[in-house]
Amino acid sequence: HADCLASCIAACSFFQNHCTLHYLQKAAPQAQVEFDFSGPSMKTAVPGPRSQNMSLSQNVGAINFFCNYEESRGNYLVDVDGNRMLDIYTQISSIPIGYNHPALLKLMSNPNNLSTLVNRPALGILPPENFPDKLTESLLSMSPSGMTRVQTMACGSCSNENAFKAMFIWYRNKERGHNTPSEEDLSSCMVNQAPGCPDLSILSFMGAFHGRTMGCLATTHSKAIHKLDVPSFDWPIAPFPRLQYPLEEFSRENAQEEARCLEEVEDLIVKWRQKGKPVAGIVIEPIQAEGGDNHASPDFFKSLRNIARKHGCAFHVDEVQTGGGATGKMWAHEHWGMDDPADIVSFSKKLLTGGYYHRDELQPYRIFNTWMGDPSKNLILAEVLNVIRRENLLEEVTRSGKALLNGLYDLQAQYPGMLSRARGQGTFCAIDICDDATRNSILLKARDKGVLLGGCGDRSIRFRPSLVFKEYHVHIFLNIFNEVLAQHK
Amino acid sequence: HADCLASCIAACSFFQNHCTLHYLQKAAPQAQVEFDFSGPSMKTAVPGPRSQNMSLSQNVGAINFFCNYEESRGNYLVDVDGNRMLDIYTQISSIPIGYNHPALLKLMSNPNNLSTLVNRPALGILPPENFPDKLTESLLSMSPSGMTRVQTMACGSCSNENAFKAMFIWYRNKERGHNTPSEEDLSSCMVNQAPGCPDLSILSFMGAFHGRTMGCLATTHSKAIHKLDVPSFDWPIAPFPRLQYPLEEFSRENAQEEARCLEEVEDLIVKWRQKGKPVAGIVIEPIQAEGGDNHASPDFFKSLRNIARKHGCAFHVDEVQTGGGATGKMWAHEHWGMDDPADIVSFSKKLLTGGYYHRDELQPYRIFNTWMGDPSKNLILAEVLNVIRRENLLEEVTRSGKALLNGLYDLQAQYPGMLSRARGQGTFCAIDICDDATRNSILLKARDKGVLLGGCGDRSIRFRPSLVFKEYHVHIFLNIFNEVLAQHK
Repeated sequence: HADCLASCIAACSFFQNHCTLHYLQKAAPQAQVEFDFSGPSMKTAVPGPRSQNMSLSQNVGAINFFCNYEESRGNYLVDVDGNRMLDIYTQISSIPIGYNHPALLKLMSNPNNLSTLVNRPALGILPPENFPDKLTESLLSMSPSGMTRVQTMACGSCSNENAFKAMFIWYRNKERGHNTPSEEDLSSCMVNQAPGCPDLSILSFMGAFHGRTMGCLATTHSKAIHKLDVPSFDWPIAPFPRLQYPLEEFSRENAQEEARCLEEVEDLIVKWRQKGKPVAGIVIEPIQAEGGDNHASPDFFKSLRNIARKHGCAFHVDEVQTGGGATGKMWAHEHWGMDDPADIVSFSKKLLTGGYYHRDELQPYRIFNTWMGDPSKNLILAEVLNVIRRENLLEEVTRSGKALLNGLYDLQAQYPGMLSRARGQGTFCAIDICDDATRNSILLKARDKGVLLGGCGDRSIRFRPSLVFKEYHVHIFLNIFNEVLAQHK
Repeated sequence: HADCLASCIAACSFFQNHCTLHYLQKAAPQAQVEFDFSGPSMKTAVPGPRSQNMSLSQNVGAINFFCNYEESRGNYLVDVDGNRMLDIYTQISSIPIGYNHPALLKLMSNPNNLSTLVNRPALGILPPENFPDKLTESLLSMSPSGMTRVQTMACGSCSNENAFKAMFIWYRNKERGHNTPSEEDLSSCMVNQAPGCPDLSILSFMGAFHGRTMGCLATTHSKAIHKLDVPSFDWPIAPFPRLQYPLEEFSRENAQEEARCLEEVEDLIVKWRQKGKPVAGIVIEPIQAEGGDNHASPDFFKSLRNIARKHGCAFHVDEVQTGGGATGKMWAHEHWGMDDPADIVSFSKKLLTGGYYHRDELQPYRIFNTWMGDPSKNLILAEVLNVIRRENLLEEVTRSGKALLNGLYDLQAQYPGMLSRARGQGTFCAIDICDDATRNSILLKARDKGVLLGGCGDRSIRFRPSLVFKEYHVHIFLNIFNEVLAQHK
C-alpha cells in the first residue's frame, strides 16, 4: 500500500541518519485512533502543481496551498496534490480535535441538527429553544473561575471589540455612580465627541496580538505590517516581560524583569490618567502567541491583576489562542491558580465560536449585533467537549506536551547554535531559531518532509497541534524535525 | 384541524370588521409553496408562558421570545409556545428564503457536505479545493458592476472594519506614490502613532448604521445608545437627505435638500483635509436602514460618487442590510443605474456570510484574520442563489413590494393622523407612525395577532420579509395591520 510504503521509506531514511537521540528508540507506534493516518506521506514539494495552478487563478497572496479536507483525518492535513502532512499548526490553532473526527461527522449527520444549520437566528432577540441548554452543555460547563456569564460572538476580533466596549461601559457607569447618561452624554456621542464618547483607553503590551479590527488593532503590537496605515488611538503600551531561558538559571533576572514591567504598567496608568485618558481596562494574553510565544510567571499575572484592581481598571484575559485545552488546562490562566483571575476572558479559534465570559458587574445589556454568534458552532463545541472529556484529552495534552518539550530540549542541546529558548505549557510550545531566514527555511523544509508548522514573533517556531496529538505524533515530528535541522547544521 | 380553525377565525374576524379597503377583496389564497403555512396561528400572547420562563433563566435583556426553528416554515416563525407568526422582520433582515427551505435541508443532508461543516479552515492560507468554484457559483456570480474581487468575512462589522482598512491602506499608498513604507512608518505604527498610524478619516452620514465594533461605530450615528461610553474618532459626519413625501409633490424641495447635503459633504472633505485628517473614504448605505429607512435619489448617489472621485476618496457602499434581493435587485445600488457605482461594496445578513467586493486598485494583500469567513456559509449561499434564480424571486419581490407599498399608501390615506411617509423599494419598505409610543404599541399588538415586524429610526416600522414573501402574504399582513390600526384609531 502506497501510504505504508511511504512511511516505511521515511522511517528507514530516518533510522539510517539519526540513531543517536534517545527519543529515537521509541519507534512511532501505529495510530491508536481509527480515524488517524500512520504518518506523513509526501508526493510533491508543497505547494504542488495542482495547488500552484489554483493559487494563480485566485491571486490571493497569503495562500500556502489548497487542501482536500474530505481526505484529511485526525492530525493529518491532505492537500490537493495528495500530500499528507502532520499538522502542528491546525489552521492557526483553530482545530480542536483534528480533522473529520467521527463524533463530529456523526453529529452533523443527525437530521435533528439540520434546522440549526439552515436557520441562523438573531440570537440576541430570538434564540432557539435549545440555546440555554446548549450554552450550559458547552461554554457554561467550562466557565473560568468567578464567571457565570458568557456572550457569544462570530469571531475573535468581534469578541475582543465587544469585551472592550463592555469595559468602557462598566468604567463610565462607575465614574457616573449610576447607569443613566446625561443629555450631554447622549448628544455628544452622536457626533463622536466627549463626554458621550469619552477619552478612555485600554492598556496593552508590546508584542500583544488581540485582533485586527480597529479597536483590537490599537492593542495589537506584534508586527508593524498588521498596523501600518490604519488610524489608531493614543493608548498606553507596557513592556511584556522578556524572560531568559532556561528559566531555572535566570530566576533572579526574570523576577527583576517582571517587576520592571509591572512598575511600568503602574506608571502608565498614572500617566494616562493625568493625560485625561484613564485606563478603563488592561488586556493581556496568558502567553503572547503571535508576538513570539512570550511567557510570564503566574506571579506576574497575579500582581498585574492586583494592579488592575488597585487602579479600578477592568482586567481582560484574551484566551483566543491559548484557550481550549492546548496548555493542558482548558484555560491557560488556570495555571495561575487564582479564584478570581479576570473580569473578562475572551475566546475563539478552538472554541469554534467567538465570545467572552464576564463577571456579573460587566453587564452586557448594550452589547448587541445581528447574529451574536452562531448556534451551529455551539452545537459542534458541545460535542467537542464530550470528546475531550471522554478521551481525557487534557491529560493526553499534558503527556504529549512533556514529550514535545523534552524533545525540544534535546534538540536544543544538540544544535546549540541554531536552537534556543525551548518553552511551553502542554503542547503550546515554541522554540527560537538563530535568525528569521533560517526559521523560514526550516518551516518550508519541514513542510516538504510532511510536517506543517507555523512561525511567530521574529524568529520563533510555534507548535499548535490539536488536542488529539499524542506522544507518538510527537516522535514522528521530532524525527522529521531532527532530519531537517541536520541538513541545516 | 387547529391551524385551519385558527386562520378561519382570523379571516372571519377580519371580514366582519374591515370590508372597505380594496385589497380586502383579494382573499388570501392557499400557500402555493409546499413548505409554507396557510397563515398565522396564535395560542398565547407573545412572549408566552414558556418563553417567559426561559427568558428569566437566561437574563438577557433584549430577548423577545424563544423560537422553535424546527417547526418554522417559509414566512412563518414558530415560538416555543406554539404561536406561528408571519415574519416580516426575518432575524433583523437576515433570512434570505424563509425558514427550513427544502432546498437547504436537502443540501445540508448531503453527506458530501459534512467535511465543510466540521473542518473550518483558515481560508486565507489553506482554502479547501472547492473554494474557488464555490466563490464563482455564489458571490462572484453576483458581483456589483466594476468589481471582480471579493473577500469573505465572518460578520457585517468585520466586513466594514476591513473595508475601512482597505481604504486607508489604498489611500496611504496613493499618498506615498508606492507601496513601500518608510522606517518611520514601521516604527511609529507599533506604538499607535503617526505617520505609521495616520490621522485619516472616513466620512459618514447622520442616521447611518455601519456596525458596532470600534471603527464601524465611529461611522454609526443612528442611536445614541449604540455609541454611548465608547471612545471614538474625530471623523466628519454629513447630513443625509431628509426627503419629504409623497416624493412627486416635493420634487423641488427634495432636490434642494439633496444639493444641500452634497455641498456639506464637499465642505467637510475640505475642512478635514485642512485639519490634517484627510478623508480616505466615504461610507454610505443605499437606504439608511437602522436610522429610519431614509432614502435618497439615484442622482444624489451619482453626485456623491463623483464628489468622492473628485477629492480622491474611496467610495464604500454598505449593503449589509440592503443587499441580497429585498429591493427587487440583488444590490440596492443597481437602482442607481451606474457602471461604476463604488470602490467597495460590503455585505452580510441575507448573504449568510460577511464580506466585501472591491475594485482591483484596493488590493487586499494585508487584509487577514484566522477564519476569513466560513465556507459552510458559502455553500448555503450558492444554493440560496439557485433558489432565487429558479423561482424568479427578484421578480416576485418586485411584485410583492408593489402590493405592499400600495397597501401602505391606502392605509396611510385611511389613517392620515397615524401613518405617513410610506416608502420603499421592492419589499424593503417602511412607514412612519405618529409617535414612538404608538409605534411600539402597534408593533406589540401586531405581534400578538401573528405578525412580526421591526422598528427603525425614531418612529418608523420597517418591513423586512424574506424573498419568498408573496402577494398573498402581503394581503395577510395588510389585513392584520389594518385591524391593529383600527383598534388604535
